[in-house]
Amino acid sequence: MLNVNVELKERFYPIHIGEGLLSNPNVYPLKAGDKIMVVTNPTVAKYYLTNLIATLQQIGCIVEQVLLPDGEKYKTIESLNLIFTALLKANYGRDATIIALGGGVIGDVAGFAASTYQRGIRFIQIPTTLLAQVDSSVGGKTAVNHELGKNMIGAFYQPCAVIIDTQTLKTLPKREVNAGLAEVIKYGAILDYSFFEWLEKHIDLLVALDQKHLQQCIAHCCKIKADVVARDETEKNERALLNLGHTFGHAIETHLGYGNWLHGEAVAAGSMMAAVLSKILGDLDDNDVARLEKLLARANLPTYSPDGMQPEDYLPYMMRDKKVLSGQLRLILLKSLGQAYIATETELPLVLEAIRCCTQTD
Amino acid sequence: MLNVNVELKERFYPIHIGEGLLSNPNVYPLKAGDKIMVVTNPTVAKYYLTNLIATLQQIGCIVEQVLLPDGEKYKTIESLNLIFTALLKANYGRDATIIALGGGVIGDVAGFAASTYQRGIRFIQIPTTLLAQVDSSVGGKTAVNHELGKNMIGAFYQPCAVIIDTQTLKTLPKREVNAGLAEVIKYGAILDYSFFEWLEKHIDLLVALDQKHLQQCIAHCCKIKADVVARDETEKNERALLNLGHTFGHAIETHLGYGNWLHGEAVAAGSMMAAVLSKILGDLDDNDVARLEKLLARANLPTYSPDGMQPEDYLPYMMRDKKVLSGQLRLILLKSLGQAYIATETELPLVLEAIRCCTQTD
Ligand SMILES: NC(=O)c1ccc[n+]([C@@H]2O[C@H](COP(=O)([O-])OP(=O)(O)OC[C@H]3O[C@@H](n4cnc5c(N)ncnc54)[C@H](O)[C@@H]3O)[C@@H](O)[C@H]2O)c1
Ligand SMILES: NC(=O)c1ccc[n+]([C@@H]2O[C@H](COP(=O)([O-])OP(=O)(O)OC[C@H]3O[C@@H](n4cnc5c(N)ncnc54)[C@H](O)[C@@H]3O)[C@@H](O)[C@H]2O)c1
Ligand SMILES: [Zn+2]
Ligand SMILES: [Zn+2]
Repeated sequence: MLNVNVELKERFYPIHIGEGLLSNPNVYPLKAGDKIMVVTNPTVAKYYLTNLIATLQQIGCIVEQVLLPDGEKYKTIESLNLIFTALLKANYGRDATIIALGGGVIGDVAGFAASTYQRGIRFIQIPTTLLAQVDSSVGGKTAVNHELGKNMIGAFYQPCAVIIDTQTLKTLPKREVNAGLAEVIKYGAILDYSFFEWLEKHIDLLVALDQKHLQQCIAHCCKIKADVVARDETEKNERALLNLGHTFGHAIETHLGYGNWLHGEAVAAGSMMAAVLSKILGDLDDNDVARLEKLLARANLPTYSPDGMQPEDYLPYMMRDKKVLSGQLRLILLKSLGQAYIATETELPLVLEAIRCCTQTD
Repeated sequence: MLNVNVELKERFYPIHIGEGLLSNPNVYPLKAGDKIMVVTNPTVAKYYLTNLIATLQQIGCIVEQVLLPDGEKYKTIESLNLIFTALLKANYGRDATIIALGGGVIGDVAGFAASTYQRGIRFIQIPTTLLAQVDSSVGGKTAVNHELGKNMIGAFYQPCAVIIDTQTLKTLPKREVNAGLAEVIKYGAILDYSFFEWLEKHIDLLVALDQKHLQQCIAHCCKIKADVVARDETEKNERALLNLGHTFGHAIETHLGYGNWLHGEAVAAGSMMAAVLSKILGDLDDNDVARLEKLLARANLPTYSPDGMQPEDYLPYMMRDKKVLSGQLRLILLKSLGQAYIATETELPLVLEAIRCCTQTD
């Protein structure tokens, strides 16, 4: 088992990474009599809910569960309300604990519910997708979507533990594994050139779910993210770097309607756009861009804008990005592979040109 | 103008109290170009919105507005969503500011929206009911109701300023003024015996809205609450004292359906129940209980359980109270007039007896 700590100003919490942790009562910060509400969905429940409940009962917890419909399009205020109703029907008070069992959607909704139920109850993350394991379960961002924009409603709220059972990835559809690799590659590109090189060597093993390399890789990504979050919990500054490709990516997701392209796929194409824009600005060279493109392609990820989406289509969504300040777009761009920065005065024609370079013409 | 500061761990914010502050640009922590979303309702808008917008425009702010339907029964997730939609339609980002113009309902919903829109934007309170001026606008509790419980969903989120224009009370229905006085009397009862005596002398002037005494009284209440909040922002302990009468009161409000009894009215009856229970426990004497009853009655407030509501009807609601820990009811009771404490092991039969003493039999 690997362990990474996330150090916050007032406390820290552990991330445990290993095979079979779902069944290991020792990694849960819980005791007999604790009231637990497991939040999951039918897809994940089918594989892992029985197992989790058995472990919790072994500890002596009182366990209730609520299943949300599966999918990004249910990452809504309505799903949030299903959780509140379940908590209230169970007569759960401020001493209850929510456990999120699932991917980033479940983690984000359940975390937001935990932060707002009776103004805040305890929360444990058990991420079961690669994306959630390397990214969304760490760092305390929680959110739901609004029909006018993704992740527009939410809170910063930290779990008291993250439990990553890497065995769960075996049932995850390949396309979802690859989408998670987009965020993995992102870490290399923005902050860690030697990790980027490590990925160039081992990406095929990761695609094939080799457990040893997977665990190393997940722990490394969690460590990178935990360090960034420790330095900048509420995204005043450096934490924004984690959003490489995301401003473009969110535009893609919103334009296509949630759930058509996976988040990681949109981030992959968006990262290419950021890289090409960095090249236009003279910071990356052709070879850097080609290396990123190749790495993404080896993980079977898209490196182009979706068919039929025009460069101009991106702008309205991009201008609604949370990083926009005083009407100024703020993009995450690359000085070099392994070094990102926040660009504040990028001219829109250049942004459009970068998107155009990543648009396939027939 | 009177001023009270609320000192938090990381920052402080001012409460300004005076006549005509709505029109005084100097009390607003805003500058030209700031994007403002005013949240109010049609009742309050009719009297004060034009005036507020004129002041904001004089400062040079960009102003949008959203009107929620009036009433406690609209203190819901749906109203919250109306605010989010308005913010997104206006393309407002993280640098926007929400101003709550109205009573406690508007303040609580708008504050919760501010805390969760893009994970938190700036927020100014302009309370226009007495209850909001002495209580709900100070201290950073925000919430919406759920059909299974009042204030069940919310956040701790502090405004950057509270602006109290005492002139606004002139248009407030008398019944609402009196409801506000229930919270005023509460402060005397829980923490400040000499203020309780001051109220016994001046309650008639307050009922008559004498501006000088009103301002003194509001500033004093804000000061009491601000000090408690400074010592215990997230209600780990002492802050719970402010809930005298509220566990009983919430049961009344929920049982009758929101909006039949006013919050302050329910708190008045609930405070009597707490006082009678304190007498049963041997802490108050008959004279103390009679003084509290008389003071509440002079403010035209109910001191009895609503017609037809039985003592047993209270329990299911009371057990769902946010102060319940590990299934144990925690009630705010009085050691003496001016000194409250958190009672943790009160036996249910005694609780029922206290409610029965406050139940009118025909
Ligand atoms: N909070 C953050 O910091 C953060 C960071 C990145 C992404 N996110 C959010 O995360 C979400 C995307 O997360 P995701 O990619 O995990 O998507 P997801 O939660 O929708 O999961 C993808 C699919 O895999 C299924 N699934 C999950 N685990 C499985 C398993 N072990 N076996 C079989 N099927 C399984 C799910 O039911 C779902 O159908 C987005 O909403 C995004 O906004 C949040
Ligand atoms: N956040 C907290 O700490 C806290 C504390 C106490 C109460 N509360 C909440 O506050 C709410 C009650 O607040 P309230 O008593 O202000 O009720 P309210 O907001 O419903 O206002 C009462 C009525 O007066 C109207 N009104 C407001 N100002 C007016 C004015 N100046 N002139 C004419 N009409 C006016 C309103 O439109 C409404 O119809 C409850 O929801 C309660 O839970 C919150
Ligand atoms: Zn992402
Ligand atoms: Zn109250």
